[in-house]
Amino acid sequence: MRRAVIGIMGSGNNATAQETNHALELGERIAKEGWILLSGGRSVGVMDAASKGAKSAGGLTLGIGARSDDSDISEAVDIAIITGMGSARNTINVLSSSIIVAIGGNGSGTLSEIALALKSGKHVIVLGGSEEAKKFLQKVGGKNISFTDSPEATVKLIKRLLAA
Amino acid sequence: MRRAVIGIMGSGNNATAQETNHALELGERIAKEGWILLSGGRSVGVMDAASKGAKSAGGLTLGIGARSDDSDISEAVDIAIITGMGSARNTINVLSSSIIVAIGGNGSGTLSEIALALKSGKHVIVLGGSEEAKKFLQKVGGKNISFTDSPEATVKLIKRLLAA
Amino acid sequence: MRRAVIGIMGSGNNATAQETNHALELGERIAKEGWILLSGGRSVGVMDAASKGAKSAGGLTLGIGARSDDSDISEAVDIAIITGMGSARNTINVLSSSIIVAIGGNGSGTLSEIALALKSGKHVIVLGGSEEAKKFLQKVGGKNISFTDSPEATVKLIKRLLAA
Amino acid sequence: MRRAVIGIMGSGNNATAQETNHALELGERIAKEGWILLSGGRSVGVMDAASKGAKSAGGLTLGIGARSDDSDISEAVDIAIITGMGSARNTINVLSSSIIVAIGGNGSGTLSEIALALKSGKHVIVLGGSEEAKKFLQKVGGKNISFTDSPEATVKLIKRLLAA
Repeated sequence: MRRAVIGIMGSGNNATAQETNHALELGERIAKEGWILLSGGRSVGVMDAASKGAKSAGGLTLGIGARSDDSDISEAVDIAIITGMGSARNTINVLSSSIIVAIGGNGSGTLSEIALALKSGKHVIVLGGSEEAKKFLQKVGGKNISFTDSPEATVKLIKRLLAA
Repeated sequence: MRRAVIGIMGSGNNATAQETNHALELGERIAKEGWILLSGGRSVGVMDAASKGAKSAGGLTLGIGARSDDSDISEAVDIAIITGMGSARNTINVLSSSIIVAIGGNGSGTLSEIALALKSGKHVIVLGGSEEAKKFLQKVGGKNISFTDSPEATVKLIKRLLAA
Repeated sequence: MRRAVIGIMGSGNNATAQETNHALELGERIAKEGWILLSGGRSVGVMDAASKGAKSAGGLTLGIGARSDDSDISEAVDIAIITGMGSARNTINVLSSSIIVAIGGNGSGTLSEIALALKSGKHVIVLGGSEEAKKFLQKVGGKNISFTDSPEATVKLIKRLLAA
Repeated sequence: MRRAVIGIMGSGNNATAQETNHALELGERIAKEGWILLSGGRSVGVMDAASKGAKSAGGLTLGIGARSDDSDISEAVDIAIITGMGSARNTINVLSSSIIVAIGGNGSGTLSEIALALKSGKHVIVLGGSEEAKKFLQKVGGKNISFTDSPEATVKLIKRLLAA
């Protein structure tokens, strides 16, 4: 059986300090569980921090790039999948992940990934979003969306979901 | 200069009666303005109603299909673009439209299109969404998102945006 | 029933004079038959010439763009479908066409479209390719590929294929 | 620096015994060099054999799937990238590989990958194609295409190309 792939989505240039801290810790915890980390691969923000966190714990990291080369891919990405498809690669991010974690989620790119994941029937965990986001996304996602407030709680929930 | 393309996004099987009525009227009004109508092309819900509305006024209708053939495309679609890409075609819908109108917008597919449109810098008009949706999407979209409550008001706004 | 869409594929910057002449005439003949012309949309080479030919006869022209905006799209394209997907849009070109005509076909981009068309079960007509190309492509395409040496013969063949 | 990714392309259901034997041996040799193996991921033909060969030598295998789930992916694929994009995923195969090896190459799917690889400026090695294929593809690919007749010679050439 293939190892589980956990997708972490979140802001690039506009990520807050708390979001990147969450991403760093979550990446590390995902690696310690033996799961593969998938992200949009860029060398900024949540994607970069999550990949670095996973590498710090010896994990395996995938980056699904938007450009037609690897010029924007983080050094902490082990395997760069180059799509040349811009935001259309967001669909690949969610289809290739067992479970998707959105850190924050008020950015339009991250929101598109939450929506595409729900559309494809994947479970989405939103770590630390705003109250407005929770209220609305709960309505959109129903039982396929959950909200957490720490990387630790997120990993506990992923374990439960993978075991189900 | 090419004619403006107005993209109408909305639910397929889960569209409400009000949403399909709005779509029908909006499609008709778009055709009367001489704009081309673009949708996801399916023969159900908002997409189908918008295409039928446009055809009733002699308009030109595009459908960007998700499947690898035209088996799910509405008869009211003049030109079927077949992508075989599933939800990744949502990116094409927004990039190919001058302005995107989301009717409703609590569905995950439509939400992904709103988010992708904002991500790509396009203006989004949400016609008739819920209060939760408005509150949250206003935060995500800033000045690139507007809210209307009738097809007539929507067309007025499109005119202003196209002239800007 | 939707109007037939005929896809014309061929070189951009490296098109020969004969290829662009063929494209111009073929575009015109396609428009006169009432068929819609589809191409990769660029403002150079075979794509541009075919679109201009079709417009000269009052036809309707589609361009499936590779970029994320319409900056490389010919003025002779009526409807620009913007994919932002680079060469992945070649798949859309072939899936959206009833029949594909490759003018020349020694270029790698055109060859990818011939191959993708055959893969998806579409009929390909190669207008004016080299002897090496014919020999090899005949082997790859079997009964789904034909070779012609003039726009007139190409249109005659399209008619037969559409009627079948 | 990221490990090199070598893409192996070839027939699925129509692969010959020699082609799958070549794929098996080449996959094994690629793994022994420490390179990552990439393929279209399916559980048949050249893709399956290459992945199995690589796994037999402890390698890491990627499969870029065409479907929207992993139902057609080989058990010998460690990491399944799920695109839901049909043949449009062929573009991803070539962009994500440092070098592309086509085993055989008279099939339309493989031919599309050879062409897309050349289009994107990647080097293609054709292992064991027909004389017609060589003659024509040499003309299309120029200095970016090479022909070999054994997995051993292929790996030697990859080494030289990666070192260049």
